[in-house]
Amino acid sequence: MRVEHGGDGAILAEKLGIPAEDYLDFSANINPLGLSPRLRETLVVAIDQLVAYPDSHYRHAKAAIAAHHQYEPQHILLANGAVDIFYELARYFRPQTVVTLSPTFMEYEKAFLQVGSKIAYCLLAAPDYTWDVETLLPTISSLSKGDVVLLCNPNNPTGTLQKVDSLKEIARYLVEKEVILVLDEAFIDFLENESCYSFISSLQEFPNVIVVRSLTKFYAIPGLRLGYAISTHPTCFAQIEEQRAPWSVNTLADRAVPAILADTAYQQETRQWLAVEKEFLFSALTSFPQLQVVKPSVNYIFFEYTGELDLRRELWKEQIFIRSCSNYHHLSDRHYRVAIRSRHENEALIAALGQVLAKEVAHE
Amino acid sequence: MRVEHGGDGAILAEKLGIPAEDYLDFSANINPLGLSPRLRETLVVAIDQLVAYPDSHYRHAKAAIAAHHQYEPQHILLANGAVDIFYELARYFRPQTVVTLSPTFMEYEKAFLQVGSKIAYCLLAAPDYTWDVETLLPTISSLSKGDVVLLCNPNNPTGTLQKVDSLKEIARYLVEKEVILVLDEAFIDFLENESCYSFISSLQEFPNVIVVRSLTKFYAIPGLRLGYAISTHPTCFAQIEEQRAPWSVNTLADRAVPAILADTAYQQETRQWLAVEKEFLFSALTSFPQLQVVKPSVNYIFFEYTGELDLRRELWKEQIFIRSCSNYHHLSDRHYRVAIRSRHENEALIAALGQVLAKEVAHE
Repeated sequence: MRVEHGGDGAILAEKLGIPAEDYLDFSANINPLGLSPRLRETLVVAIDQLVAYPDSHYRHAKAAIAAHHQYEPQHILLANGAVDIFYELARYFRPQTVVTLSPTFMEYEKAFLQVGSKIAYCLLAAPDYTWDVETLLPTISSLSKGDVVLLCNPNNPTGTLQKVDSLKEIARYLVEKEVILVLDEAFIDFLENESCYSFISSLQEFPNVIVVRSLTKFYAIPGLRLGYAISTHPTCFAQIEEQRAPWSVNTLADRAVPAILADTAYQQETRQWLAVEKEFLFSALTSFPQLQVVKPSVNYIFFEYTGELDLRRELWKEQIFIRSCSNYHHLSDRHYRVAIRSRHENEALIAALGQVLAKEVAHE
Repeated sequence: MRVEHGGDGAILAEKLGIPAEDYLDFSANINPLGLSPRLRETLVVAIDQLVAYPDSHYRHAKAAIAAHHQYEPQHILLANGAVDIFYELARYFRPQTVVTLSPTFMEYEKAFLQVGSKIAYCLLAAPDYTWDVETLLPTISSLSKGDVVLLCNPNNPTGTLQKVDSLKEIARYLVEKEVILVLDEAFIDFLENESCYSFISSLQEFPNVIVVRSLTKFYAIPGLRLGYAISTHPTCFAQIEEQRAPWSVNTLADRAVPAILADTAYQQETRQWLAVEKEFLFSALTSFPQLQVVKPSVNYIFFEYTGELDLRRELWKEQIFIRSCSNYHHLSDRHYRVAIRSRHENEALIAALGQVLAKEVAHE
């Protein structure tokens, strides 16, 4: 299976004959503030360090992440993008069954299907796609030793958020069954109050839990390939590091880590932008009666469209790319996800949507 | 298993208290000409493209490699370093038995052991470590359908080179047995007369052969992570691409490909440097009676030392790092490999070796 993703704007633009600088890409959830000046400077300097192999142990990057979360370097696994970690965990744990939410990020399923796991889904339903411990129990109660529960928090594409207290309840239930809980927190750093939702501060109590984090969405560097996992599991990371190919993370990604974690100005600016634009875009989208919009938690908005058009293709004509969610399980070609971008871009999206949807009303 | 490699100069220097700019690293076989100005410029521009995901199909990079070798893009697999390809091939072919030369690059064995393959060795022996079709036959004759023969040409660390005619004889023998032949040509682009040795021009005839190439040694970018494989195998690459994690190659590596392949000035300068320095360093090393030096084929020199010192540690005192080959099968702590570097650096190595070896003579 090959999973279609957002973020292939350049390919799409080429196909549609749109110049690279003219399209607006709402299909990938990347911070529109772009590269911070501090990171840019670090990367330019690091270019001259490409003549050597990367540090095979990634000591400085791991130390910086460990210090950031108040753990030790041996609790950190650095990877060539967060998505790579799901493939490594699949090969390491080889569970009989994996439980995921649905709809959710499709790469979990793809990674675990390759080691022969069976996938069981906990369905999230309209209108708000929320879930609680009771939603999960019927599915996770049948799991046995060595199985994996993989939850995306906040969930992609619905934005559904779960508090750490509920997650601890699940973790407690699973630790007794010797089941592994993997939490994908790829977008959690966009939250104002991350500590109410992130499991990281509870990992000391739960060696059966692995948290996966991405640095590329928040710091706008998806092209760099950089992610990490954090856990107090006694053997998992050491064995993955021992078994995988050497030098899996490139030198620029390695060098970026300490620079971005220390970049508090960029972090503040990002949270200020998002606080304003999340409200703005959500409120503007809800004003269209044909859209059933889920309240966003982080930097993307999920909605169901009740009309008959192919919204994605209609917006191509306006040189705007949004993410159709038709390739997710339990969603249809009426479900879409849009990234929250700059005011200027968000206004352009709303204007284009207004034109497209008005056309439909006129046709009716 | 974790394989020790050369190229961890920065870690070693830190441990020994040597400032980063003061040590000379002969332990990794990297072109000492460093980053070409053309590549450097491409990479600086590409930093601003990190805000988008890499092209998920790597169309431009694959087209450039395909054109360079006169094949089609579907014959190319791009990877996060050439070493990653051995892990992907291991997971794809899952052979019962893999035949390799020995000594050879240790990651082959590590990659294939993880899918449960048995490793069979064809031993290369002193003084010249050469091999021919007859050397291989006893070992490969017992292989059966789905097995893999993996040959490094030129071989690392011995430099042993095999002509394409002998390789075609082996490929012909293996195609009948439905055995896959993987040829690691990581250093072959350092040859003046590459076409006498590279299998690439014969791939059309042999869909059971996969050639793996690295761009990072010749173009001095091991920190970037970039390699590729080329084959006319009908399914292998498409299935690996479909099954692996997306965006496995970063944007800078992707953008580097067309720039370096077109950089004929750098290619000429590299071959000119190597033609002179290979002779210089080989001839200087052979002047030490305690060293039994194998004639080099590309940019590194392998030798056996007949004395009693720990040459690697002795050279640490001179702030020079060389590769001990003691962790290779069928080699000992008397075997070493040194990269060929600039005249200035090569002279420093010879002077330091001279001092160390003279000390030994004085002690006797």
